[in-house]
Amino acid sequence: MSLPLAELARYLRAELRGDPDHRISAVASLNRAGESELAFVGNAKHLAALSSTRAGAVLLGAEHAHGYAGNALIAADPRLAFARAAELLHPPRRSAPGAHATATIDPAAVVAKSAWIGPHSIVEAGASIGERCQIGAGCHIGAGATIGSDTNLVARVHVGERCTVGSRCLLHPGVVIGSDGFGFVREDERWVHIPQLGRAVLGDDVEVGANTTVDRGALEDTVIGNGVKLDNLIQIAHNVRIGDHTAIAAQVGVAGSAVIGRRCTVGGQAAIMGHLEIADDVHVTAASLVTTSLREPGTYSSSFKAVPAQGWRRAVARLGQLDGMARRLKQLEERLKQLTMGSKA
Amino acid sequence: MSLPLAELARYLRAELRGDPDHRISAVASLNRAGESELAFVGNAKHLAALSSTRAGAVLLGAEHAHGYAGNALIAADPRLAFARAAELLHPPRRSAPGAHATATIDPAAVVAKSAWIGPHSIVEAGASIGERCQIGAGCHIGAGATIGSDTNLVARVHVGERCTVGSRCLLHPGVVIGSDGFGFVREDERWVHIPQLGRAVLGDDVEVGANTTVDRGALEDTVIGNGVKLDNLIQIAHNVRIGDHTAIAAQVGVAGSAVIGRRCTVGGQAAIMGHLEIADDVHVTAASLVTTSLREPGTYSSSFKAVPAQGWRRAVARLGQLDGMARRLKQLEERLKQLTMGSKA
Amino acid sequence: MSLPLAELARYLRAELRGDPDHRISAVASLNRAGESELAFVGNAKHLAALSSTRAGAVLLGAEHAHGYAGNALIAADPRLAFARAAELLHPPRRSAPGAHATATIDPAAVVAKSAWIGPHSIVEAGASIGERCQIGAGCHIGAGATIGSDTNLVARVHVGERCTVGSRCLLHPGVVIGSDGFGFVREDERWVHIPQLGRAVLGDDVEVGANTTVDRGALEDTVIGNGVKLDNLIQIAHNVRIGDHTAIAAQVGVAGSAVIGRRCTVGGQAAIMGHLEIADDVHVTAASLVTTSLREPGTYSSSFKAVPAQGWRRAVARLGQLDGMARRLKQLEERLKQLTMGSKA
Repeated sequence: MSLPLAELARYLRAELRGDPDHRISAVASLNRAGESELAFVGNAKHLAALSSTRAGAVLLGAEHAHGYAGNALIAADPRLAFARAAELLHPPRRSAPGAHATATIDPAAVVAKSAWIGPHSIVEAGASIGERCQIGAGCHIGAGATIGSDTNLVARVHVGERCTVGSRCLLHPGVVIGSDGFGFVREDERWVHIPQLGRAVLGDDVEVGANTTVDRGALEDTVIGNGVKLDNLIQIAHNVRIGDHTAIAAQVGVAGSAVIGRRCTVGGQAAIMGHLEIADDVHVTAASLVTTSLREPGTYSSSFKAVPAQGWRRAVARLGQLDGMARRLKQLEERLKQLTMGSKA
Repeated sequence: MSLPLAELARYLRAELRGDPDHRISAVASLNRAGESELAFVGNAKHLAALSSTRAGAVLLGAEHAHGYAGNALIAADPRLAFARAAELLHPPRRSAPGAHATATIDPAAVVAKSAWIGPHSIVEAGASIGERCQIGAGCHIGAGATIGSDTNLVARVHVGERCTVGSRCLLHPGVVIGSDGFGFVREDERWVHIPQLGRAVLGDDVEVGANTTVDRGALEDTVIGNGVKLDNLIQIAHNVRIGDHTAIAAQVGVAGSAVIGRRCTVGGQAAIMGHLEIADDVHVTAASLVTTSLREPGTYSSSFKAVPAQGWRRAVARLGQLDGMARRLKQLEERLKQLTMGSKA
Repeated sequence: MSLPLAELARYLRAELRGDPDHRISAVASLNRAGESELAFVGNAKHLAALSSTRAGAVLLGAEHAHGYAGNALIAADPRLAFARAAELLHPPRRSAPGAHATATIDPAAVVAKSAWIGPHSIVEAGASIGERCQIGAGCHIGAGATIGSDTNLVARVHVGERCTVGSRCLLHPGVVIGSDGFGFVREDERWVHIPQLGRAVLGDDVEVGANTTVDRGALEDTVIGNGVKLDNLIQIAHNVRIGDHTAIAAQVGVAGSAVIGRRCTVGGQAAIMGHLEIADDVHVTAASLVTTSLREPGTYSSSFKAVPAQGWRRAVARLGQLDGMARRLKQLEERLKQLTMGSKA
């Protein structure tokens, strides 16, 4: 695909400065872009690269445009416009409708004619695959599971029985939706398994990163809201509920029955304990541990930054002495008080 | 399946109050249960829902039963009884014995007649699959590996060559048993791989969550005891030994050659360093880091709870000043001592 | 395979004491080794086991050899020599060249005659598989992806389109190379996906542990240097660059655009934030969080060790009081100063 700049500007609602007929066929970084490519300036750090770019056109904000003599598309939010341009010029590869010869589709499954079922994929009885879905190689859609329309399971995605994935979702390789929740009751020293009977339910426009796991609910459902974005290697336990448009970075763990609000962000490797509530618009920084409900929007943290190990060991040792220091401080205050009273007397 | 309450009460060893002929066919939550469903009261928080439930019967403890007029099953441990009822009423789906046409089974493998081998699964030479096993879609049983009887590999489980999984185990999608341990020796700046020649050996009644990995031992074996429960995305390194009935929550990492006792619990995202020993009945809280042997039973912790980021930053900055504060405190004590001696003189 | 000790000594450049014709066919631990097996003494802790070993020969350093009367191979670095011996005596199982009947290989893929493509594996159009590669069961090599020579993908490895894996690499089950990076732009409350157009590029002699994920770059590439060793369940985000011979332990997360130097080591569960640089020869301890560039070689840390929970709770509470303690300390100093000046006056 290749477009004249005038058309691209219209599509992106950007102001065009330069040659309206110059054709663009791809996006690239400022450093690598050539004649037929569009690059972008996201912030002031990019300005050095801008001065030497050979890009056919550059997307930037008005504040960075004045000094640039080449073809320019000026947008209110250049990063957003660039994402749009990239989506337009680099549409995801789609396989033609139909099922690969090696796919195993149960006669009692319902697969839309416009969907593609890849090699070695399995669709079980009662499962339903929506219009224009791409079910990649080695996927497994369990009995009675439902996949909405225009959803893309890249490869090797497991959707357990009766679970639901919405429309326009993107699930990466190794994702497991609907594994059993970790539910046991102790009997003497043994653990007795509690059957996990709920479902995992993903809304529309959900993205799930590679090897992330979403457990099914115990009795009710695990629910991932619309527009939620989950990065790689995340654990979502049973009965968790995540509000719309919340984004969670890699390796975060969310324990059972936690309820997370809308538009939250959770930094990588953070952990959220179970049976608590997090309000809308809460932001948890990377590697922090949420142990109680967070009822107010805002940013929360409990992590330390790495420093040279020697200094760190000293600080950690001092932390162990803190209790004693607090007591000595109190004693000092008392003795000084007595002394002062004495000297006043 | 559907049972009269009298029979269910006998099976659960519960006391029945109400209609012995009322038939129950499923379990459900208090909020959702209908006429033919059994719900349960686990603790006082459930009492509000109890007052409005439409469940056909409710499982509860004697302390919560007095105010309830509906059909009731009174049990010493309602949660345990509920787990039993759920298991009885919702037996896991089983596929009929045999192998799917797309499974690849080496002629030199031994597969019990009562076992099921799912689509696109692979059983290599010398592997052995026990009675009534369910080997789900896309599983891979390596050469010489052994799977006990009544074990269920849900889907896409990898059991490496010569590894052993016991009886009545449940392994979820994406599990890897018997990947190489992370063993290298430095030679100048390069790392030389140390062949990993041991096995991973899982006992009976072990449950392993989605995408969890258990490395094989370097020379001896990695050993997971009977009744051990591992949640999702856990890493068990080479030569680790985990005692019977220990339960480990999601995303925990256990480093090489660590030995963990019986009946321990480890909270989510905790890390246990290598070459150390943890006694029986030790509990490690979520996100804690165990760096030394823990020889006494009890609860251990090293994690902080997330607080508003501004306050946290101040606390962290103070931690950096702690060394200086300790010195200033000491100075004050000395000066005050001198002063007191002076005033006494 | 079985070798006389004289030959093994020559191969390992070790000094032989004992019977040059004694044949060795395997390696084993001191406790388990028998007549035809080679064991090793890595450090003084092994000396107790040495005294009772029945190994046919023992590899050890000169400092441990004097008291041992059996067959001995004395090496400068016994651990390294042992790794070499293990590699020689236990070569990895190799399948014969060719493709399994159930493999799906696109006619437009280039597969070396000496390579093996396992059951249910998929090689897409334009992909290239080098000489003597072993592509295990259920692997997926995307369109245009390149695998160097002598590389071993154990099973169920996903290599996304256009990504590159070097020669002599070893990728374990569940590895995902080239999943999309986690790139979004906010538009009102929605997240707009930024197409991830770069590649993931792995050098030669790279090892990647089970279920580890390496995202492709956004515009440029994610680059893993030669000889890099990644353990299980690691997350490498888009545009990360890792220098040669760096080793990273399990469950580490590296966020987008981080640049890590050569010969670094990162302990398990550590997290490295995005858009920062780490110098060569930096070591990050387990469970630490790197939030800023580390420009000097050395060891960095930010983790605490687990202690009995009661004591820990007290220390954590004191940390919350630290701000107040600092203020009180300052007041004391001032009052004492006034007092001293007063008493001097």
